Amino acid sequence: MIKQYLLSPGPTMVPERVLLRMAHPMIHHRTPQFSAIFAETKQMLEALYQTDNDALMLASSGTGAMEAAVTNLCAPGDTLIFVNGGKFGERWGKIAARHGINAVEIKVAWGDAVAIDDVQAALNAHPDAKGVFVQASETSTTTEHPIREIAALTAKIDGCVTVVDAITALGVIDMPMDAWGLDVVISGSQKALMLPPGLATIALSEKAWELIAATKGCHGFYFDLAAERKNQRKGKDTTAWTPAAALIIGLNEVLKMIEEEGLQNLFTRHQTLAEATRAGVTALDMRLVSNAPAASTTGAFVPDGVDGAAFIKYLRDSMGVTFAGGQDHLTGKILRIAHLGYYDAFDVTIAMSAIEMALERFGYPVAMGAGVAAAQRVLVNRVPRAVL
Amino acid sequence: MIKQYLLSPGPTMVPERVLLRMAHPMIHHRTPQFSAIFAETKQMLEALYQTDNDALMLASSGTGAMEAAVTNLCAPGDTLIFVNGGKFGERWGKIAARHGINAVEIKVAWGDAVAIDDVQAALNAHPDAKGVFVQASETSTTTEHPIREIAALTAKIDGCVTVVDAITALGVIDMPMDAWGLDVVISGSQKALMLPPGLATIALSEKAWELIAATKGCHGFYFDLAAERKNQRKGKDTTAWTPAAALIIGLNEVLKMIEEEGLQNLFTRHQTLAEATRAGVTALDMRLVSNAPAASTTGAFVPDGVDGAAFIKYLRDSMGVTFAGGQDHLTGKILRIAHLGYYDAFDVTIAMSAIEMALERFGYPVAMGAGVAAAQRVLVNRVPRAVL
Repeated sequence: MIKQYLLSPGPTMVPERVLLRMAHPMIHHRTPQFSAIFAETKQMLEALYQTDNDALMLASSGTGAMEAAVTNLCAPGDTLIFVNGGKFGERWGKIAARHGINAVEIKVAWGDAVAIDDVQAALNAHPDAKGVFVQASETSTTTEHPIREIAALTAKIDGCVTVVDAITALGVIDMPMDAWGLDVVISGSQKALMLPPGLATIALSEKAWELIAATKGCHGFYFDLAAERKNQRKGKDTTAWTPAAALIIGLNEVLKMIEEEGLQNLFTRHQTLAEATRAGVTALDMRLVSNAPAASTTGAFVPDGVDGAAFIKYLRDSMGVTFAGGQDHLTGKILRIAHLGYYDAFDVTIAMSAIEMALERFGYPVAMGAGVAAAQRVLVNRVPRAVL
Repeated sequence: MIKQYLLSPGPTMVPERVLLRMAHPMIHHRTPQFSAIFAETKQMLEALYQTDNDALMLASSGTGAMEAAVTNLCAPGDTLIFVNGGKFGERWGKIAARHGINAVEIKVAWGDAVAIDDVQAALNAHPDAKGVFVQASETSTTTEHPIREIAALTAKIDGCVTVVDAITALGVIDMPMDAWGLDVVISGSQKALMLPPGLATIALSEKAWELIAATKGCHGFYFDLAAERKNQRKGKDTTAWTPAAALIIGLNEVLKMIEEEGLQNLFTRHQTLAEATRAGVTALDMRLVSNAPAASTTGAFVPDGVDGAAFIKYLRDSMGVTFAGGQDHLTGKILRIAHLGYYDAFDVTIAMSAIEMALERFGYPVAMGAGVAAAQRVLVNRVPRAVL
């Protein structure tokens, strides 16, 4: 009997009460009964977004919502600027290329946050750009980009918006959409929203809606944001196409949990878990991947001589602890330890304990308990848990 | 305490063992553990499709898969032929128009099946058409179209395929994809696949793949079928984008149930339930909507003087029995009684019983038990159930 621990940055663990809520018998999505759940869920989702705008739900993965943002805001031949500091940043460019949109790349070294001066320079060089497309948290390098500062730049430019992939940031860090002037914010169900994958969310500012209305070209059919807004608005409370109903019902339960916790507690918890994890891996002499580490996931280099891919496989198959590895040139070199969503102090303990024992098994000398101890020193006074 | 019965043509009832399987803790989709489930599910899905081709799974509703078929097979400026005999047929035209594709409509009266001569005439008039797009079962009118005969026509034409929306037909009627030469067959999770919505499936013949390869233009990014085929093929066993993992795990359980039942029993059961339901409503003097009634759902006109919308609302809110109503000019005039998926003899009994009692409450004289009795006369000798 090996218990399973899912400590990857998506999918993340789904709370028991959410799994059970979703296991209730199915209800029809074109009924007042579902619409009532939908309306309540949407309102709570908008509270999490910290926005007065509509937060829309799409039956797709986050990539679908990314494509929706690109194709609804930009017509073929238009220009957009995107920050490429990892696998997800790179995706903006691929989506734009597929649709004949001119994508201006701001290339950033993996592990670095984008320099705000580089964004300003790109905006200066491309005054016709429809927007800056960026990740709040670039999951492949566990790095946070300065989205607030970017939004302040585009706020000064007519017809230019800031589009944020917040798939591993919404519900993790305090990123008030309206207060910061973020125009488009995207998330996905299988991250801090603590659900299985298959539901994406997207909220847009009035400035973004005006840009969409003025954009000639193909908005797509399945990903037609204006059609979704028309259907999902308060009072109508439905979706243009058949919704991922079970996930929306699960999201209702998730957002009640978040309401019970309180937004500030939610952000503090994630910050604390991130600091504890960084302290833990640092104590084990594992160097951080990022110079601007995200609160969602900690990336750390495995020690020289350890095969990262084999290390992760051993942790998963022999110890029951699933982490993520690295992608592209970081393949086999890093470990990514998630701490977002349904994750608390003892999950950090498990992560550190598993890494220590696995390092020992891989012949890498480690002071048993050093990572756990360092994490605990961060956690002990800060986590509101009766047993500590 | 009012028990709830979901007798609508999607979403349909989800079997208890499927709900519970999906309530298991989440697993990571980029692991050998998930790939093993994925590969087994795909193989069983292809058995249900009765095809040696790949049956692909997409994280979207069925509409997403319909758009994928259109945009992967046709470039802007291309021509397609579509059968419009209801709300879902109409959708082919809307999708094509959105993408600048020339859509030739074969208009069919609601409730009629398309005449095969009309399809032949359209093919003669448009020798450049990339395909005929049609519903196997047009759910809005509860009508079956002659997909086998249509496929026989396009089989003779190079570069022209038959694309079938089988969203309420796959797993209901015997429609062997390869034997009938169907080129593209689409389905969705919340119908006979007995799952919550959010997963679409699509299988394509070699002829369709060749057409896709030869099609210049925008294949979309999220709905890129060639990319999905590359990832989902045997041995790779993954998806291009994050999959709707919980639904795929649920589908694994569903397909095991279908395997246990056997395909011929599955089709016979649906046929029997459909015949029983038709007999029941006919005994209540409710006229069938369709001249070629589908095995998935029975559409029947409510008696003159009964407000169909109020009737359906009463059945749902006061009796706990959810049927579907009519759309467009059939709004308020018809009742659609589903009998697909997790549905057996006593669900027909419930449907008839509820309709009879509701008719009585609406002041329409009805011989109590007449519909139930007529249905039972069909069911009694044909349903393999120990208690009968």
